[in-house]
Order: sequence, then structure tokens, then C-alpha cells
Amino acid sequence: MPEYTLVGKSVPRTDSIEKVRGEAKFTADLSLPGMLYGKILRSPHPHARILNIDTSKAEKLLGVRAVITGKRDAHPYVWGVLPYTRDYQLLPIDKVRYIRQDVAAVAAVDEDIAQEALELIKVEYEILPHVFDAEEALKEGAPQIHEDKPGNICVHVKIDEGEVDKALAEADLVLEGDFKGPEESYCQGEPYAVLASFDSTGVDIWCPNAGPHLKARPLSSALGISTSKVRLHRAYIGGAFGGRSEVSPADVITCLLSRKARRPVKIVYTREENRNAVRQRVGWSTHLKMGFKKDGTWTVGDFRCIVDGGAHASVGPIAVSVPYMELETTYPLKNLRYDGRRVYTNKPPRGMHPEQNRAFHIGVELHLDMAAEKLGMDPMQLRLKNAMTSGFVTATGARISSCGFTECVEKAAQKAGWKEKKGKLPPGRGIGMACGSEMVGFPMGIRGGSSAFIRFNEDGDATVISGVVDNGQGNESMVIQIAAEELGLPMNRVRLISADTAICPLDQGAYSQTATFLSGGAVKEAAADAKQQLFEVASRMLDAKPEDLEAGEGNIYVRSDPKKSQPIRRVMMNALNNDITIMGRGHRWPQIDNDREWVNNPRGQWATTYTYGCSIAEVEVDKETGKVRVLHMIAAHDCGYPINPMAVEQQLEGAALGSGTCGGLFERILWDNGQNLNANNLDYWFPTALDVPDIEPIIVSTNDPLGPFGAKEGSLSIRMSMYSAIACAIHEATGVWPTEAPFTPETMLQALQEEEKGK
Amino acid sequence: MPEYTLVGKSVPRTDSIEKVRGEAKFTADLSLPGMLYGKILRSPHPHARILNIDTSKAEKLLGVRAVITGKRDAHPYVWGVLPYTRDYQLLPIDKVRYIRQDVAAVAAVDEDIAQEALELIKVEYEILPHVFDAEEALKEGAPQIHEDKPGNICVHVKIDEGEVDKALAEADLVLEGDFKGPEESYCQGEPYAVLASFDSTGVDIWCPNAGPHLKARPLSSALGISTSKVRLHRAYIGGAFGGRSEVSPADVITCLLSRKARRPVKIVYTREENRNAVRQRVGWSTHLKMGFKKDGTWTVGDFRCIVDGGAHASVGPIAVSVPYMELETTYPLKNLRYDGRRVYTNKPPRGMHPEQNRAFHIGVELHLDMAAEKLGMDPMQLRLKNAMTSGFVTATGARISSCGFTECVEKAAQKAGWKEKKGKLPPGRGIGMACGSEMVGFPMGIRGGSSAFIRFNEDGDATVISGVVDNGQGNESMVIQIAAEELGLPMNRVRLISADTAICPLDQGAYSQTATFLSGGAVKEAAADAKQQLFEVASRMLDAKPEDLEAGEGNIYVRSDPKKSQPIRRVMMNALNNDITIMGRGHRWPQIDNDREWVNNPRGQWATTYTYGCSIAEVEVDKETGKVRVLHMIAAHDCGYPINPMAVEQQLEGAALGSGTCGGLFERILWDNGQNLNANNLDYWFPTALDVPDIEPIIVSTNDPLGPFGAKEGSLSIRMSMYSAIACAIHEATGVWPTEAPFTPETMLQALQEEEKGK
Repeated sequence: MPEYTLVGKSVPRTDSIEKVRGEAKFTADLSLPGMLYGKILRSPHPHARILNIDTSKAEKLLGVRAVITGKRDAHPYVWGVLPYTRDYQLLPIDKVRYIRQDVAAVAAVDEDIAQEALELIKVEYEILPHVFDAEEALKEGAPQIHEDKPGNICVHVKIDEGEVDKALAEADLVLEGDFKGPEESYCQGEPYAVLASFDSTGVDIWCPNAGPHLKARPLSSALGISTSKVRLHRAYIGGAFGGRSEVSPADVITCLLSRKARRPVKIVYTREENRNAVRQRVGWSTHLKMGFKKDGTWTVGDFRCIVDGGAHASVGPIAVSVPYMELETTYPLKNLRYDGRRVYTNKPPRGMHPEQNRAFHIGVELHLDMAAEKLGMDPMQLRLKNAMTSGFVTATGARISSCGFTECVEKAAQKAGWKEKKGKLPPGRGIGMACGSEMVGFPMGIRGGSSAFIRFNEDGDATVISGVVDNGQGNESMVIQIAAEELGLPMNRVRLISADTAICPLDQGAYSQTATFLSGGAVKEAAADAKQQLFEVASRMLDAKPEDLEAGEGNIYVRSDPKKSQPIRRVMMNALNNDITIMGRGHRWPQIDNDREWVNNPRGQWATTYTYGCSIAEVEVDKETGKVRVLHMIAAHDCGYPINPMAVEQQLEGAALGSGTCGGLFERILWDNGQNLNANNLDYWFPTALDVPDIEPIIVSTNDPLGPFGAKEGSLSIRMSMYSAIACAIHEATGVWPTEAPFTPETMLQALQEEEKGK
Repeated sequence: MPEYTLVGKSVPRTDSIEKVRGEAKFTADLSLPGMLYGKILRSPHPHARILNIDTSKAEKLLGVRAVITGKRDAHPYVWGVLPYTRDYQLLPIDKVRYIRQDVAAVAAVDEDIAQEALELIKVEYEILPHVFDAEEALKEGAPQIHEDKPGNICVHVKIDEGEVDKALAEADLVLEGDFKGPEESYCQGEPYAVLASFDSTGVDIWCPNAGPHLKARPLSSALGISTSKVRLHRAYIGGAFGGRSEVSPADVITCLLSRKARRPVKIVYTREENRNAVRQRVGWSTHLKMGFKKDGTWTVGDFRCIVDGGAHASVGPIAVSVPYMELETTYPLKNLRYDGRRVYTNKPPRGMHPEQNRAFHIGVELHLDMAAEKLGMDPMQLRLKNAMTSGFVTATGARISSCGFTECVEKAAQKAGWKEKKGKLPPGRGIGMACGSEMVGFPMGIRGGSSAFIRFNEDGDATVISGVVDNGQGNESMVIQIAAEELGLPMNRVRLISADTAICPLDQGAYSQTATFLSGGAVKEAAADAKQQLFEVASRMLDAKPEDLEAGEGNIYVRSDPKKSQPIRRVMMNALNNDITIMGRGHRWPQIDNDREWVNNPRGQWATTYTYGCSIAEVEVDKETGKVRVLHMIAAHDCGYPINPMAVEQQLEGAALGSGTCGGLFERILWDNGQNLNANNLDYWFPTALDVPDIEPIIVSTNDPLGPFGAKEGSLSIRMSMYSAIACAIHEATGVWPTEAPFTPETMLQALQEEEKGK
């Protein structure tokens, strides 16, 4: 690994102390003078026309300051992240399409009065037929959820590259199967909350988000004001995970309430609302057909997916493409057919999540193990046989710039004792491996990537102005570490102003793995620009050429004679005394084919680079109870270069746990007729500390040529693959090929009984 | 005048609607979650040693969260704006030097409890001898206010240029006299207030200021943390007038309380505190000796001034230099001697104000009228004989770049009907004229001038990031108008982020007439930089060279064929789609001799440019009551070029009223043994609407080569001269040469009686 002063060193994150001391303010912690409290009335019906809303009694209640309905108060704006997915009135005017959809809202001087007022609103509905199952929704005669979307098809993505039918015919081994994955909750630690203050200058908003500029634009359309009148402010954010990437009904409703009441308004969701009225992860079913040569070469894949997207497209359409994308960048497969449909149902709209295509990935990786079994190979050897390499151009035309696939597999296997264990564990135990890749620098959302400014105080302390947002993953600390390294300042002399749409230059948002790569890259370039200006000043003080100078530990010094040095503080004073201002600016854009079409046979570069990883899990299955216990997880990930190794390791631990333990063993939403039965932290199971196994994170560095200091992203290949490693390990432990995650005692017991019957 | 689209047009100020609707939030309007209320215990003694402070009872009072004293809680920091004026412990440790100086402070859950707690604090003082009069303080044996400042002399400025004694000997007419001016209050509409929130990241502060960066640096020293940990935020500010240019004890005290209580704390001054514990204007006495040739040429001046600066130097030292500076730039006088002393007394420390040297200016202008009388000349002709011209180099070496002296005199005289009226008015009436000049782009405070960033939203709306602060004079609107003109956008598509030390690049602060000239200039340069980048993109869209393009009304078009045009919104989208980011940056520095020495025979350029003006007042004096009534005021001012003529006219009206009616007729602080007797809006007289005469503002444009669009500043020459015009008019009306402002009925009656006796 290259050597830097700060970058590549494990440092405590800059947000640690504020969070430990309880000083960090999340949206629910904020208040403004004269602030009101908002509550939302929600539909009890999954599908119904709104005939009339009588708010007169609610308006008369003492303490109520505003009551809004879609028809009376909302701008007639239909939101969608892409032109062909505009299907969402954020406060509906005509009809509701899922249980607990927003119908009306109240702002009052306290929460109790707001709640009481909700109960005084009378809504007349005309109940319509509904459909909750994606496969049912596709059938002829199914209730139509959107008039202009016949067949309830939201998006239909088709790929047909190479010669799939020929390759299947020529394959030595063809495997076929079906897999399913349920909806999951994102389980953000922070319930959704919005604080909005509307006045003649526009609206100020605080709310969780994955990129403030991404919300400002649709919000301005929904409110009928210009984008620059919508100011999203920075607040601490307690998780996003793909569920907070886009505008939310609560954002618009809070703004409308504030506009009507002429007072600041805050809405804080209950845990139940946070599960029912905020995007959750999609449900998924998939059919796979994969062909292999005798030597283990995987030559062809033919896949069909159906995604239950709920009542609206939301940001989900892109998600339908993710399985083929992440497959084609993981394994060098040139014959690829993919047919993915996102289907409307009368359930809450779904968002994005890296783990969403669990069913697909588990299916692929189990089939690789199955192929290895049938071909008499070690599953690791089969994966290495099909390893991705840098320079490869995928089926749809994406070039792989750096790739640590093989190194991840080898390092993980070595650490896990793969050779010693595979096939040699006692009965009831198994070890499994799965591989993943993840896009970096994906262009979704705001065009133009990220840009940043850097300015200085008189004492040489720097301020970075960047649109980057931190949802908990440590982006603020990352950006500060990058700027400090480049400027040669200690981290405590760099301040960050971020995630504020009125101040910060455009930024594409912190998702699809862009924060380090693009936002960090823009900050590095701005810092380099400022450093060059400092060097010009210092060169006169040190009697040296600017190109012979270096910066580090708060000083600028001559590379060949580090004793010739000046503190940056003094260089800054010298600049000011000579009427020189130091101001840096930088940009970084995704390097992709801007013209790539996304739905019908897309072709071209679709992300700038890709990360790679290998997950290994060792499990023990109790055949009496069906309970799966994960003993050990190894997570080897090619992050390009770790800006802060400690933060990358934490991300890897989180990814292994979130994918493997949460996704593999625990999490699913339970439904009864469109009602979420476990919309709280008691009934919705996720692991506690006692359920967390040993996790060993392994950092693999490939030094991507386009990433800042070679960095790509910190953990997503593991999030994409640990559940599959568990599935493979379960097979070894039990002989079962598990087809539906999560592998709960109930589903495992059923599978074990069926396996027993089959024998 | 040159023609621009927006600049030079009268437009409503951008802050108007917020202020009219009551949405504008001043510091006292703000609150933060968990906020406490602070109160300050003040000294009853003008000069005393603090022997002991017992806070134990106060600390035990229910609801009290923090009690601080200087000895226990303050950083041992002695503040001063210049190295040789460090004399101010902002929360004193050793002794108090004026009545109502800060001694201890309390933060509690409400104001009543805080007040009650103050009464429980026991302070033991050792009372020391005091002195309240500047002349007394200079005498041998006077009480010493600072141990290291013998003779109570704070600053002593000496100028001796040309051949003063020779010129006096050779003069045809020598006049000599003494003049006095009292202390005045600034009477800001908003009482001083501070909100501070201290946590592990540093401190966030909201308070009135004349430049947030000017406060951040001393505050960081007073708190013992780095400058970048001190964040001053923007809030609306209700006036400054020189009284809010520097750090205030309340700033430090509120921060210390917040640090100790670990909660946000707000202190809002009472009207009385705002008069006693915030800098007010200095008192002044002056001796003048002026020599003339027979033809009216003013050849020589010899001046002595004594300034009562109160107990601390504050920002006042510079003020001692102002009389000679503003004299040498108004009249082309090459033989100039000046001796100015700022003296310590046991009164509250004084700040700066353009009108502070009232006594000096009135003396000079009355002597010009006296000379005209004795030489048989029209006072206007004598002034035109001694008119400043552009290109002149003053006695101490400052070059005048643009000068509208003569045009101001002629336009004002024409509008006033000078020729028809002078010497021809009925008894008891008089008309008077006085001239003034004012520095622009003075370098006090932060070095390095102002700098600005500009960024864009996707829709082509722009954000300007500038440190400029608006104290009520319209600086925010000014900066937006300049940026909009330069970018070719309507004003409502330009947003300003300002006056925030964590975000905004360094700015010298909005005083000494730098806001339009430097801050506005920096914004213009940043906008020009961004426009150039937009032109590069548009040139490809319009198939034209960048240098052939213009921007206006939201479009970029070909100069020679304006129909070939693209909306800026589309140029921006084109840029983003082609991975081009538009980011502007600009700087503007004062063009002065950075090495100029300030105390002993200073020489060199001391401001970048200067404005000129002529004030004319017509008065009627009731000889029975001594009451002076101003009938009419004419204010002709060379502002360089008016960015917003309506705003300049408002400034001129304010300046004429503030200088003429307030300063000339009403305002003075009354003292009894160091006690301010009229520290409120009832007993301290200032004009109400009924006292406001007709004011005619006249804008004179000289298009300064260094100013943005030729602009300099908007009214200060009038603030410097209208009181003198009234003095001259009073002489014509009564025959009296009034020697002490304000010209109240009481002083006038006395002067009339003496005049009567003298006859």
C-alpha cells in the first residue's frame, strides 16, 4: 500500500465524540421558536377512491393551526425519479393505493391535539379491489393500480447478450431453479422525522436524506417553488440503507403544513410509521438457468425476476437492473439473458437496498456450489476458475478498471482455513463461500457528480464545503481525512460544511457507493488546488520552486531538505499580508456513458469502477429445531485503498452482520391482507449482541486509478454476498439447498423435513 | 451614468418582505432546544479592585445551571484590537474600571431565576479613586486607570506635514477657536443579544456584529480554542453604527456560561444595558488654528484634540486619527499639524462612529464661514476655492482616485437655491453649507479584504457565498444585485449565504465603508469568473466565441445577434450533462500601503478611495426659546456609482437625519458621577417622525475606477457634514458661532444671551 501521513491510517471518526456525548442532534431533537407538531391521517384501505374529506371539525379544535388535504393544499405534482416512473402524488388527491397511505395532515400546538384532530377528520372512500401479490398482479383481470400502467408493470428490463440459447445447448451441465426473498425493513435507528419552516424566502427543511440536493429538486416541484427556495439543512442521520434516497410524503406534508400555518412544523414518525410509511426493501422471486463446461467454466446464464415494488415506482426501477449488473461484473459471463419486471401491488412502495436481490444472489451462488458438486470440484476452485479480472469488458459493455476478486477469495479462504475445513467438518456443520461485486460511481440522481470548495481562516485552518452527506457510515470523517492529507493539516484543523443545499455545491448523494469515490475525489481535487496556491506563497518564503514543496503536519517544507519549512499558519498570514486569497475548488464526475439506455438492452459503461469481495461463513444447524447458528464470518473486500482502515473494518463488520445474520437468518416483513404484522422492533426480528458471531474483516487494496488515493468503497461486496455464503454453508451442514431467505428455524425445519421425505 | 440591466436601477431591497412581515429573526428571537437565560452582574463602582466574589448562594438556587466569575472561569486573555491597545479583560479578574462593568454572570432556566441569582452573589470591592473627565485624567496625580498606561494616555497621534509655523506666519488671516462634542449613544433599534451553544465541536454564536470574522478571532483567544471552532452565524441585525465592530464582553460571557452549563445560553440586554455596557460614541474637545490667504485659499491648519475614550481602548484608537484623515482628503491642505490624544477615564469604553468628531468638523466648517465673512466671500465660493480634485496627493501621502467635491457643492447649492437665499433670508433664519469626505476600502481588522464563491443549482439559480454582513444598510441586497447583474440573472434567482464564519471566506467586515467596495467587488469578480465558465459552455451551444457573448435576464446571447440565445437554465443542464461544473471565485483587497505606520507621522495610502459630499441646511431659530428648527436639508453625495439608487437615497436621508437632526440638535449622554442619566429611549432624546424635515438626496456619480461598477459608498460624507451645515446656518440665523453640539434650546439660549451680552 502507498504511504501517506493520514490516509490509510486508522483514526477515530470525527463524529465519535459528539455521538458518544449525546451532543449530536438528529431531526427529532431540533426545535424552532413557535414550532408546531404535525400528525398524518392514514388510509385504512389498501385501494380506495377518496370521495370527500371533511376537515371542518378538526379545524375548529382549540390548538389546531392547519389542516391539509391533497385536493385542497397540494400542488398537482406527480413525482417519479425517472420520466417514465411518474406515478406518485405525495399527498394523494384521487385515491389511496396502500394501507396507511397519507390522506390528510394536521399541525397543532402539541402532539396530543394533533392526534385528537386526526380523529375528527371524516374521509369518505369508495373501496376498490386490491392485489397484494406480485404474481397475482400480473394476471389478466387483476385490479389495476395505476390507470396508465396496464398489467401493473412498473418497469420491464430486458438484456440478451451473446448467444444464450446456443451456449445453453452446448453446455456440459445446465442447472435450473427458483428462489424467493421476502420484503425487509431497513430498521434505521432513527425514525423518520421532518422539521420545516416556510416563510417568504422559501422553506428550510431538516430531515434524514441520502443527498440533500436529490430532495431539493422534487420538493421544489411538489411545492411549486424554485429549487433555490428549498433549503435542506444538515442534521445527524441515523441510517438510510437505500430507504431515504428520495423525497418522502412526510417532507411535502410538513412543508405544506408550515406554509399554511405560517409556523415551523415538526413531524416525527412513530416506529410503526417508520415501517409502514417509509420505503422498505422489495420482495423478490427469481428463476435461474445456468450452463457450465466440464472444467467448471460458467458459460451462460438466463434469468427471470419478478419484483414486488408496492404501489409506486419510487426509486425502485433501477433496482430491477441490479441483479444482472452485479452478476456481469462479478463473473466474466458473456452469454447473458435477463428479464426483470417490477410489479405494482397494493402494498407500501419499496425503495432500494444492496441486499434487495438476496433471492437472486443466493440462487446464483447455490448453483455455483451445485455445479461444483456435480463436476467434482472445490466450490472455491470453481469460483477462481470464473474469476473476474481487471480490464475485462462485461456483457453489456462495462470495463472493469481494478479488480481484487482472486485476492479476496484467496485471503478469505486462507483466513477461514478453507482447505482444512471444506468437506471435513463434523455433521451439522458447514462452511460456505460466496463472491460479490458492487458498482462505484454510479450516476443516478443529480447529474454532474460532486464538487467542493475549500477556504481558510487566518490561522491556516481550512473549511471544506461539500454536498456530501453522512448517514452514519462516516462520510464526514472520510472527507475531512482526505482534505487534511492533501493539505498537510491535522484533521482537527479541517472543518466540514456539508449536506446543505443552499451552501454546498451539487453532489450526487451518498448512495450507489459514490461518497468516497466522487465526493471524496472532488474534495481531494479542491484541496490540491488550494495547496498549489499555498505552495506559490511558500515558495517565496522558502526560496524554492513550488513543485519542490510538500505539505504535512501543518507545515510546508522543501522535499529535498525538510528542515526548510514554514507552518501553514504563517504561509496564510503571509498570503493575507500580500493580498493573496487562497480558495480551492474541485470536481469529480462519474466516468460512465451518459447516453446509456436503461431498460431495453442497455449497453455501455454504467459505473466508474467496481469493488470485489469474498464472504465465507461457517454455520452449525440444529436439525431438531432448524436453528442456524453462524459461528464465524470472514469478509475480504477490495476497497481500492482504505482511507480509514478502522472505518472500513467497521463497515465490513456491519455488512457481514447485516447481510449474513440479519438478511440470512432473521429479517422479513410478515403480512396479513396488506397489513404489516411486525412493524415494530419487538415483533420484527433482528439480531441483538448475543446473535453476533465472530467477524473477521480483511482489507484488500487494488488502488483504483480513478479513486481518491486509490479508494473505491468500503463494504458493499460483502453486503451482496454473506447471506449466500450462509446458504452454501447450510447446504454443507444439512444437504438442503435452501431456496428462501431468511433461513429461520421454521423454514429450515420445513426444508429439512422435505429433504428427509425426498430421500 | 453607464447603463446596466439591474445595477443603477432602484429595486426593493431583498430583506424588505421578511422585515415587513415580521419573519426576520434577530438574535433575541432565536431559541435552541434546552436553552438557558443569562444575566450579568455589574459593578456599582467606577473604579475598584475585586477582592472576592462569593457565588455559593447563587449556585444553590433552584434553576441555576452555571455561575461564572472572571477569576474562576475566564481565560487570562487581555483583548485589544491593536498590539499596543491590549487593555481589556472582557470578564475582569482584577478590577473594574467603570460603573456597570461586567463582574459575574448566571445562566438559569428562566430570566427571573437568573436575576434572583445575581442578587445572591456577594462581591467584595476595594474602592479606588476615579476620574470621569478627560482633561482631569491628563493632569498629574490623576488616578491611574491602567498601570501600564502612565498619564492615562491610550493613544497619541502626531502629524506634522509641510511647514506649519511658516505658513501660519505668512497667512493673511489666522483664526483660532475651541469646540466640544459630547458622548452619544448609537441607539441601535435592536438591543444587544447573544445566543451561544458550546459543545465538543466548538461554539456556535449568534449576535449583532459588523463582521463575523472580526469577532471570531478575538473570541477564540478569549475562549482558548482555535478560530475555526468559533462559528458566528448570520442573524438579522438591527443597527451597528460603529458600536458593534468588535468583540463584546457579552459574547465571551455567554460562551463561558454555555461551556459551563453544557447548554445553549441566551443573553438579551435591557435598553439600559445596551446603553451602558455596549460601546458608545466618544466625547471630544478640540482646539483649531487655521490660516488663509486673502483670496480665500486655506493654506495651513494646526489642531489639537482630546478624546474621552472611557476605561478601555476598544476599537477607538483608530478614531483619534479620523479628524486629520478626513480633513486632508476633503480640502487640499499641505501644511498640516495634528495632535490627538485618546484618554482613559472611568466611564464605559467608547467605540467608533463617523460622526464622533463632530466637534472637530463643526469647528473647521464654522472657521471656513468665519474666514469667508472676514474676507468678504460667499462661503460656497470659499469652499469651491479650496475644492479637492481627483489625482491630488494629501499631506500624508494618500492619492485621491475619484472626486466629486465640486459637483456636489454645485448641485446642492442649485437645489437649495443658495444664490437666492444666502444672506437674503428673513431674520431668525439661516442657510449653511458644509463639505465632507469619507474613506472607502480602509484596511482595519481582517487583512486580505473580501473573497467570495459562487455556485449553481441544476436550474441555473446561483448561490453567492460571501462574508459580507448586513447591519440594516442593505448589504445583502447590494451583493445580490451585483451578482445578478454580472451573471445576467434576475435577483430572485440569486441566493446569498453570508456572515457565517464557518462557511464564508474571509471578509473585512461591514464598516469603514468596505461592504460595497470590497465585498461587492469580490462578489462581482466571482460572478465574472462563473460567467466566463458559462460562456464556454454556451459558446458550443450557440456556435459563437465566448468573447462574443453577453448575459442578461436569465439568458446568454450573442452580442451582435441577441436572438441567438440560450436560457442559463439550459446552459447549466448542458454543462452538467457534459460533466462540467460551474464554480466562481473572486477576491478584492484594499489598495493601501500595508506598511503605513499609524501613530507617529504616518505616511502613505491609507484607504483605497474616498467619497465626497456637500450638506446644506436651512434653519429657523426661535430666539425666545432657543429652539432650532431645521426646515430643509440637501444632501449631495458622490457615491461613485449607485448600485441601487433607492438604497443610496435612503442612506442619504438617514445620514442627513442622523448627522443633522440627531447629532446637531438632539443627542447627548448626560452624566452624574460616572452614572449615565439617560440610558433609555425616554430620557435620551432623538427625533421622532415629527422632527424630520424635508430631506433632498442628490446622487453624484464619479465612477471610481476601482469600485464594482464604479461604486464607492452610499452616504458617509453627509454623516460627516450635516451637523456642520446646521451650525453654519445657525450662525446666519443668530449671529452666534455655536461651539458645542448638540444645539439644544438650552445651549442655544445660553449662547444667544452671551452673544447679546457681548454686543
